[in-house]
Amino acid sequence: MSKLRIAVIGCGSIAKYRHIPEYAGNPNVELVAFCDPVLERAESFAAIYGARAYQDYKKLLEEVKPDAVSVCTPNSLHAPVSIAAANAGAHVLVEKPMAASETEGLAMIEAAKSNKVVLMVGHNQRLMPPHVKAKEILDSGRLGRVLTFRTSFGHPGPEGWSVDGRESWFFRKEEAIMGAMGDLGVHKADLIRYLLNDEVAQVAAFIGTLDKPGADVDDNAVCTLRMRSGVIGSLVASWTYYKGEDNSTVFWCENGVMKIGAQDGDQVIVELRNGTEERYKVGAISTNDKQESSGVIDAFVQAVVTGERPIIPGEEGLSSLRVILAAFESQATGRIVTL
Amino acid sequence: MSKLRIAVIGCGSIAKYRHIPEYAGNPNVELVAFCDPVLERAESFAAIYGARAYQDYKKLLEEVKPDAVSVCTPNSLHAPVSIAAANAGAHVLVEKPMAASETEGLAMIEAAKSNKVVLMVGHNQRLMPPHVKAKEILDSGRLGRVLTFRTSFGHPGPEGWSVDGRESWFFRKEEAIMGAMGDLGVHKADLIRYLLNDEVAQVAAFIGTLDKPGADVDDNAVCTLRMRSGVIGSLVASWTYYKGEDNSTVFWCENGVMKIGAQDGDQVIVELRNGTEERYKVGAISTNDKQESSGVIDAFVQAVVTGERPIIPGEEGLSSLRVILAAFESQATGRIVTL
Amino acid sequence: MSKLRIAVIGCGSIAKYRHIPEYAGNPNVELVAFCDPVLERAESFAAIYGARAYQDYKKLLEEVKPDAVSVCTPNSLHAPVSIAAANAGAHVLVEKPMAASETEGLAMIEAAKSNKVVLMVGHNQRLMPPHVKAKEILDSGRLGRVLTFRTSFGHPGPEGWSVDGRESWFFRKEEAIMGAMGDLGVHKADLIRYLLNDEVAQVAAFIGTLDKPGADVDDNAVCTLRMRSGVIGSLVASWTYYKGEDNSTVFWCENGVMKIGAQDGDQVIVELRNGTEERYKVGAISTNDKQESSGVIDAFVQAVVTGERPIIPGEEGLSSLRVILAAFESQATGRIVTL
Amino acid sequence: MSKLRIAVIGCGSIAKYRHIPEYAGNPNVELVAFCDPVLERAESFAAIYGARAYQDYKKLLEEVKPDAVSVCTPNSLHAPVSIAAANAGAHVLVEKPMAASETEGLAMIEAAKSNKVVLMVGHNQRLMPPHVKAKEILDSGRLGRVLTFRTSFGHPGPEGWSVDGRESWFFRKEEAIMGAMGDLGVHKADLIRYLLNDEVAQVAAFIGTLDKPGADVDDNAVCTLRMRSGVIGSLVASWTYYKGEDNSTVFWCENGVMKIGAQDGDQVIVELRNGTEERYKVGAISTNDKQESSGVIDAFVQAVVTGERPIIPGEEGLSSLRVILAAFESQATGRIVTL
Amino acid sequence: MSKLRIAVIGCGSIAKYRHIPEYAGNPNVELVAFCDPVLERAESFAAIYGARAYQDYKKLLEEVKPDAVSVCTPNSLHAPVSIAAANAGAHVLVEKPMAASETEGLAMIEAAKSNKVVLMVGHNQRLMPPHVKAKEILDSGRLGRVLTFRTSFGHPGPEGWSVDGRESWFFRKEEAIMGAMGDLGVHKADLIRYLLNDEVAQVAAFIGTLDKPGADVDDNAVCTLRMRSGVIGSLVASWTYYKGEDNSTVFWCENGVMKIGAQDGDQVIVELRNGTEERYKVGAISTNDKQESSGVIDAFVQAVVTGERPIIPGEEGLSSLRVILAAFESQATGRIVTL
Amino acid sequence: MSKLRIAVIGCGSIAKYRHIPEYAGNPNVELVAFCDPVLERAESFAAIYGARAYQDYKKLLEEVKPDAVSVCTPNSLHAPVSIAAANAGAHVLVEKPMAASETEGLAMIEAAKSNKVVLMVGHNQRLMPPHVKAKEILDSGRLGRVLTFRTSFGHPGPEGWSVDGRESWFFRKEEAIMGAMGDLGVHKADLIRYLLNDEVAQVAAFIGTLDKPGADVDDNAVCTLRMRSGVIGSLVASWTYYKGEDNSTVFWCENGVMKIGAQDGDQVIVELRNGTEERYKVGAISTNDKQESSGVIDAFVQAVVTGERPIIPGEEGLSSLRVILAAFESQATGRIVTL
Repeated sequence: MSKLRIAVIGCGSIAKYRHIPEYAGNPNVELVAFCDPVLERAESFAAIYGARAYQDYKKLLEEVKPDAVSVCTPNSLHAPVSIAAANAGAHVLVEKPMAASETEGLAMIEAAKSNKVVLMVGHNQRLMPPHVKAKEILDSGRLGRVLTFRTSFGHPGPEGWSVDGRESWFFRKEEAIMGAMGDLGVHKADLIRYLLNDEVAQVAAFIGTLDKPGADVDDNAVCTLRMRSGVIGSLVASWTYYKGEDNSTVFWCENGVMKIGAQDGDQVIVELRNGTEERYKVGAISTNDKQESSGVIDAFVQAVVTGERPIIPGEEGLSSLRVILAAFESQATGRIVTL
Repeated sequence: MSKLRIAVIGCGSIAKYRHIPEYAGNPNVELVAFCDPVLERAESFAAIYGARAYQDYKKLLEEVKPDAVSVCTPNSLHAPVSIAAANAGAHVLVEKPMAASETEGLAMIEAAKSNKVVLMVGHNQRLMPPHVKAKEILDSGRLGRVLTFRTSFGHPGPEGWSVDGRESWFFRKEEAIMGAMGDLGVHKADLIRYLLNDEVAQVAAFIGTLDKPGADVDDNAVCTLRMRSGVIGSLVASWTYYKGEDNSTVFWCENGVMKIGAQDGDQVIVELRNGTEERYKVGAISTNDKQESSGVIDAFVQAVVTGERPIIPGEEGLSSLRVILAAFESQATGRIVTL
Repeated sequence: MSKLRIAVIGCGSIAKYRHIPEYAGNPNVELVAFCDPVLERAESFAAIYGARAYQDYKKLLEEVKPDAVSVCTPNSLHAPVSIAAANAGAHVLVEKPMAASETEGLAMIEAAKSNKVVLMVGHNQRLMPPHVKAKEILDSGRLGRVLTFRTSFGHPGPEGWSVDGRESWFFRKEEAIMGAMGDLGVHKADLIRYLLNDEVAQVAAFIGTLDKPGADVDDNAVCTLRMRSGVIGSLVASWTYYKGEDNSTVFWCENGVMKIGAQDGDQVIVELRNGTEERYKVGAISTNDKQESSGVIDAFVQAVVTGERPIIPGEEGLSSLRVILAAFESQATGRIVTL
Repeated sequence: MSKLRIAVIGCGSIAKYRHIPEYAGNPNVELVAFCDPVLERAESFAAIYGARAYQDYKKLLEEVKPDAVSVCTPNSLHAPVSIAAANAGAHVLVEKPMAASETEGLAMIEAAKSNKVVLMVGHNQRLMPPHVKAKEILDSGRLGRVLTFRTSFGHPGPEGWSVDGRESWFFRKEEAIMGAMGDLGVHKADLIRYLLNDEVAQVAAFIGTLDKPGADVDDNAVCTLRMRSGVIGSLVASWTYYKGEDNSTVFWCENGVMKIGAQDGDQVIVELRNGTEERYKVGAISTNDKQESSGVIDAFVQAVVTGERPIIPGEEGLSSLRVILAAFESQATGRIVTL
Repeated sequence: MSKLRIAVIGCGSIAKYRHIPEYAGNPNVELVAFCDPVLERAESFAAIYGARAYQDYKKLLEEVKPDAVSVCTPNSLHAPVSIAAANAGAHVLVEKPMAASETEGLAMIEAAKSNKVVLMVGHNQRLMPPHVKAKEILDSGRLGRVLTFRTSFGHPGPEGWSVDGRESWFFRKEEAIMGAMGDLGVHKADLIRYLLNDEVAQVAAFIGTLDKPGADVDDNAVCTLRMRSGVIGSLVASWTYYKGEDNSTVFWCENGVMKIGAQDGDQVIVELRNGTEERYKVGAISTNDKQESSGVIDAFVQAVVTGERPIIPGEEGLSSLRVILAAFESQATGRIVTL
Repeated sequence: MSKLRIAVIGCGSIAKYRHIPEYAGNPNVELVAFCDPVLERAESFAAIYGARAYQDYKKLLEEVKPDAVSVCTPNSLHAPVSIAAANAGAHVLVEKPMAASETEGLAMIEAAKSNKVVLMVGHNQRLMPPHVKAKEILDSGRLGRVLTFRTSFGHPGPEGWSVDGRESWFFRKEEAIMGAMGDLGVHKADLIRYLLNDEVAQVAAFIGTLDKPGADVDDNAVCTLRMRSGVIGSLVASWTYYKGEDNSTVFWCENGVMKIGAQDGDQVIVELRNGTEERYKVGAISTNDKQESSGVIDAFVQAVVTGERPIIPGEEGLSSLRVILAAFESQATGRIVTL
């Protein structure tokens, strides 16, 4: 089989630290083109991988005709770039949040369908080993019915991650559309939907820009969710956890509690009413040599190669996006929003 | 000075483990009467303290004319008993939630005012040493402005505490009015108001009876709060934390984070952006011989004796109650409620 | 259903700490008779439970006609008492080792079969929560094929446990038949057979009386086992672990290692080659109110009541006994013994 | 004094990580020649040390006439190379196991004796600081008589160590003669003999190739040993401890227990019946700048320079080898073998 | 042999918790008389042991003619009671400090000598297992020469120990002569002399009453010592370590450091320059059933019974006392005092 | 504002690791000249910073006319160089001990005053975060009055720090004037004065050269101090803490104890009599990117730039020096010295 020819559109940190090295480590692909408005960024990767560099993604699509693309642009471009790529016949892996609106999301799904290409969304939290283990435990039934939960994702903000630091597009509403909710909240909405195998029924949210200087997007959100099954819980996203960073989820259930990422040293802890305690360190995170791997790229390539449905298809990305959009609506209207 | 003559109305667990022994340990008071619908309960305490026993609190008030009363009845009786006591000229210490409605609460305050008696509410969380320490730290300013918070109070339910076990009034709406929110949520609403020195501006809440068999009151509530200052956070109350009990509060602030009751071993932890870590074990909880003391009774007696304003006056109890009532309104109306 | 009428024959420590209190806690039985050569022992239990006391077990069987008996005598009497009980129509729970020889063991099984009574052997290690968990893990297949193991049971000797201290029958060959191997080794032989779901194929053993003053039975045994599947391992029994007590079992497998009872704090530890670590505290041991329960008595009663096959029938006890007898043969002949 | 002229024959990992750097660090020697069938290996060391490189050890001996040689070849060559070296007048340090058979071992000792050269065997476990400390403790008498022991040496196999990885001679019977027993078991046999100052009297063993793909030598062995003094114990060697690596030895004694390498953090632990606990971290392993030193090379050089008897002379190596050979005989014959 | 007839003079805490129970546990003695100015104290012990009770020690000596006495009086009476006892032919065990002055001490030694009775001083620190272990380690030579040390003994004051609490004679100069220095400092002076096998050459001290209300004796002393060998160090005694209690000694030596009682969990820690660490828990303190035993009484009885020199004879007690007296002289004169 | 022109006189370790990099990191200064008797040292720094190199400090002062100098010479030159610099109009930061005698110290202060330049002494211990925190805690009053203290500074000696190793001037009396006392003791004298906000009233000391080969200065000192307030304590300096290094200070107070640097993991620990425990990790030491910063240079530059009084002016350095000089006098005269 010939190798998949891959283009990466947008060469910021997520491309640099996840997409590009993971494609480079996958034996089924070759990196053939890079695109970034800062041409030097694209060129530096092109030089490493013997690929071509572009400033204009349309030109890239036209000239290179890649088999597949990763869309790593600011959020506002996720939809237009993905649609253009699909229309150019390329399979699409788009970063989260997949789109800026439901309309965009639907259009992306439609474009993929009509062009018969894969559309997958980069919700890597589903593939993190502690979450894989948590899913396995919930599915085993030993915790019984979930009753209530808490999920949080907070860090000091994207300025420490973005290649542009404090000047990052993450802080500009025009490009980012949303702030902490798009960066972090949508991850946790997706994770809760996935772990509970359930859909969000209602959302109430308080969202605001409480502290981040120069940002015109949200830096904090506190939401309550009610799932269709009746489970209730809180979902928090924050760019102002300057200390006390948190990427934890706790489920209180009929038979006990499961804590994910909530205590140092053990990634998943189960405490049952019968007194049993289970503690898991899930090795793949820190001990093997694919430490940098999110698993998302391999999963995307596999879907393209095998023709199987991708593990996080556009529809899933859209359902998770809807939760976040409902939260913004709740904040805007002062109402609890029913999905 | 002659001793204050105290009557305790309602002889369940809160009377048994907190009010009665703490009055007994206070040199300024004598216990003169006990009242409970189960007369034997009242009699057993009366026998110990050389006091009188009643089934009917009105008769008690009339015959004994106590200087002060503790109201430890089911929630539905807090207001009528308190008002009767005030009208009988007795100072009143009423358990939380102080009343079943705002109207009742206002009537209680009015009754106390017109009879020139003290009305204090048993929000003992303010006096717990970790919360005293947390208040001191927040007031010191070293954490800077609070941005967001999380506060939770969950345990396996009152059946393990109440003298009536699974038959407890806690589970019956007629007497309890509310469930976990009245038992636990109102504590945390009061605590947040107190620690932040701020009032709740808006509440959104999902409240339900998710698991507790035989209960017709709420066993779980997940709320989001916006304070007048703009701080946002979550407040959770649960009677179904069968494992993973939690009475924690975390504040993320401009300069760092403060965690209260969030990790074993240290009751208050402060982590500052400048790298400083402070860890506090606050001794009074476990090391001195007043281990059982909530501090509430002593504070009430002091207010009566000195004529000073009580540390948790009726008005404060009412403000905290309003938060809970607003949460119920949010659940009922599907709206975010503005106070 | 009327209650099962139970007699306990032999009133030493195993009767006192396990059989009698566990029968007393089982709602389906009543204790009707006790027997011991030291009549006072039998009488003291009889007084507590309103039962009859005997010195002669035959007279007991004849006069009381119990529905079921526990045989808690010295080892040499396990077979004759069990057979007499079966012939008297009583179901039999016999302590381990079930017999002094294969011939005896076969006769016991035959007696139970011909009298249509249950014969169960008290191999309680199978029911200990860490072993239940270990069985579940091995059966899950995630460790892959077991390759090699180590199992040990060592303590300072029965003088600290037996009601007769240093004068205990445990040290006298005529009554005990075997020492540490009968007391401890047979437990681990049974456990290995059970956990591996495999039979011992070959045994080599060095057995001796190395240190225990006044004993004419073995106080130490070091054995190597080869299972039918080809797994090899060591089995150790000792009464001279004066410090460094040990009741641990470790399995090295294709995919990692499982350690049972090998480290303080966690009863079962799984370390997989993929980096995952699982640590289990299995609650029933220390946290619930049936702390003293071996589970054996309840399982025996259930088999009698339901007519189901007991979880450790005589045939299983005999297979485990054969391993020990083979070890003695190896020691005696200087040969590796094939079962 | 002029420096000893050293040749290293066999340039695999043991030469690379131990012999060569330790010779290089010893002021009394100069490295003058290297030999390996893969000439490049020999040449690369020769280049570093200004020495000569050979493919043929006989030519080396003839041309270079070294004062002393290290024999780091596959096991099958230990004897012929050592004898040739001795006959060429060179002192010999040979890796373990010293030979492939007793006959070879005796011939090596005879060759050394007749040529008046030193013959030492690389049993470095004797010189490891925890074992030095353990020896000192046993010799102090405070543990009393040793009663029983357990010694194990297991790791995931030599493929992670050998310069040839999975293609290593370690897995080929023709060159290796033995597998885990020659690599690891002979170390522990030597250690037990040394620490107990006693000889093995009887051996029973189960040895097999349970899992290592492509190996035609043993990858697991479980042995029981009886020492002349009557002490019994188990000795285990494994190349399939993929997790749960183990190089531990435990001695249960009259007065308590000594654990070597059995718990993280403390290398030697003594627990006495009188309640005393001693815990040792023995510094030389990890804290000083000779971290890589086994001590064996320095000891060999000292013996050559001073004319003193080497600390592990050929006779000692042979006695330890005999234990392993007896284990193989036990496996082959199904008998307990008496030495 | 007939039993030694023992009288205890002074029935305060040291008699109650150490002398009396340890005599009671010694098979070679019988307690025949007790004396205390508070007659009830003497009578209560007399009732327990079938002995006689006295208020006047002279009468006791005359009427009872004990074989041996323990002198547990306030410090000011140590000498007169001991001398009277010796003159009455009784062997004497006197608490520390043995006397109030050198003259008294010499007179006691002379009285014992002329009456041919044993005179022993209760310096129990020498017999504490950590100090026994420390002595063994120093004597082994592995630390090399001691260079400098620090020894401290501080607690919150004797009011928590004395039967008279804050009214104790410990605080009255007339009876106590000295405060913390007599209670604690003399212990550490004795210990340093003993462990170093050396004598104090020079003392400088600052001694004062810094905080203890109502005391007219010293509550704190900070001394520097120079030993004859040249070792220098500090010795501290305090009754105002309200928190941070300390009974530690640290020796810095040529080859490393030894810490006694300086860290939780391990009583003696040795850290050598070669990287070795040794950690000792010395069992007898907390694990055996003679937990309350200081060992002093048994040692005294043994000396009397065997006629051997007592392990802490009067001369030793006097040498240790001289150090304390020199410290007071230094404080009084503002000079460094040479002994 | 133009940058301060800085010269560093003396280019040993303190210049290399503290002064030079901290000046280099301060935006208000430029390094213009370096001086060292070993010219290469000066030249190597001059090359890095584009500065000039000198062997003769007088020539440097004359030719370069720096705005400020750091005096990092051996102790004997502190005064002459500082005075020359002041006379040349340069502000002076001098290492500790500031001078070799009181006369020198006074002359330095006078020179600074008459030339209107800043004179600051490098007592960096005051600026270490744990000491800053300790000062804040003592000043808060929650520990009450300090009663007694212990402060120690011991390490294995300057040979491991000095650029000249065992040949360092630190060991030569002519240049160093004092040994451990000048290197370490003066730090702790300054710290105690600072933390207690008190002056030393009396000193007694034993000082000697106990072990350091080739040193003709003190390697150990044990001192007792009495402060004007009556607080007493010990001060220890040592160059022979080969293991057991110590830079700790403990204050026992009316209300509890404060331990600085006394336990691993927490830099400041407060234990109060009311049971409260506070534990501080003070981040700046190890977690931020100014890890190497003592803070002294920045403070000096700030004083020069702003004209404010430096935080450790010459007068403070002199007061701390007087304590050390008094200790030497005590050693020399055998008297307790009153300051």
